[in-house]
Amino acid sequence: MSLTRVHNMSISLDGFATGEPQSIEAPFGHAGQRLHEWMFATRYWDADGTAGVDDAFAQRHSDGIGAEIMGANKFGPPGWQDDPEWKGWWGTNPPFHTPVFVLTHNVRNSIEMDGGTTFHFLDAAPAEALQIAREAAAGHDVRIGGGPTVVRAFLAARLVDHMHLVQVPIVLGRGVRIWDGLEALEAAYDVEAVSSPSRVTHLTFTRKIAVK
Amino acid sequence: MSLTRVHNMSISLDGFATGEPQSIEAPFGHAGQRLHEWMFATRYWDADGTAGVDDAFAQRHSDGIGAEIMGANKFGPPGWQDDPEWKGWWGTNPPFHTPVFVLTHNVRNSIEMDGGTTFHFLDAAPAEALQIAREAAAGHDVRIGGGPTVVRAFLAARLVDHMHLVQVPIVLGRGVRIWDGLEALEAAYDVEAVSSPSRVTHLTFTRKIAVK
Repeated sequence: MSLTRVHNMSISLDGFATGEPQSIEAPFGHAGQRLHEWMFATRYWDADGTAGVDDAFAQRHSDGIGAEIMGANKFGPPGWQDDPEWKGWWGTNPPFHTPVFVLTHNVRNSIEMDGGTTFHFLDAAPAEALQIAREAAAGHDVRIGGGPTVVRAFLAARLVDHMHLVQVPIVLGRGVRIWDGLEALEAAYDVEAVSSPSRVTHLTFTRKIAVK
Repeated sequence: MSLTRVHNMSISLDGFATGEPQSIEAPFGHAGQRLHEWMFATRYWDADGTAGVDDAFAQRHSDGIGAEIMGANKFGPPGWQDDPEWKGWWGTNPPFHTPVFVLTHNVRNSIEMDGGTTFHFLDAAPAEALQIAREAAAGHDVRIGGGPTVVRAFLAARLVDHMHLVQVPIVLGRGVRIWDGLEALEAAYDVEAVSSPSRVTHLTFTRKIAVK
């Protein structure tokens, strides 16, 4: 059974997964790197990092994943669609190592990168995109990689089997919120919370009823 | 030193401290009692309850408190100002046992209840209300009792020394949010999070710089 999973999605206390405005200098806007410092401190990110609860969660990011779906706002800064040379933020060897499906109204030819990552561009609704990504994942799971608008769309379409959020103790005040339009989301999930000595709190949502 | 404290303020994952619409039948609107079930299960509320981390936090509610400030929406349902007989939700012996200052544009005479609670009615901004409550507290601390609009106003005015929030794993989607307008609140506080086996997460905000 191939699951649809969200991992390491960091949010502020007020639920923003990115600040504003987003730009090539500031991919997360005024949030800067504050939403992800917990991850940079782990062994997942840095060989000298910690191997506690933050690392245990972070390492789940790639286990058993055969494809990722991401939104246009994750792939590049506003306007990347006008730059035919834009190949993502991540250099020649992006940290995905699977097919990655970028949801955008401006589709272009696929881009094969080093290390097993190929970017494909899709103008598709969540269910259709998931079907395509699942075929590419060849029996493995599909990660919904963000940003928050895309995660929210997949949650609203009831397509997410597992979600890992990381609540960082800051109040961003503005940006893109994960929670909007998701009233009663908890009805479909077992929700667990565990606070870390790093001061973040990991929230996991595990779908109650297994889907085929 | 008299501190200004918030205790047992329960919020949903998306930051709502009450649902909507509020009425005499449903003081917390569509949230019902879901934001406070964690507290009903503790010894603080029920002699047969639990005595773990939830209870430890809940019990802090009254320790060292000499007065409470509450908003009009906590004192009664919409329209209570038109009912000269309204004396709050809590019966003849309210659980405050101190002077309580109700912030309202419709002031009326003070009401002395059993058990040491006296309701006073004030049309005042946060700083002025706090000064009056602090005098009444006679050296003890002042609790900001809610609802969220009042807590937010005192936070925005930088008048809160300690805040205890309880994040409940539900998504309410609508109601009154605690976080609006509080960007960078964390700069003034040490923020701690601890998850409970009951699935709530306790968040404490302790002001970094002591105030007189």
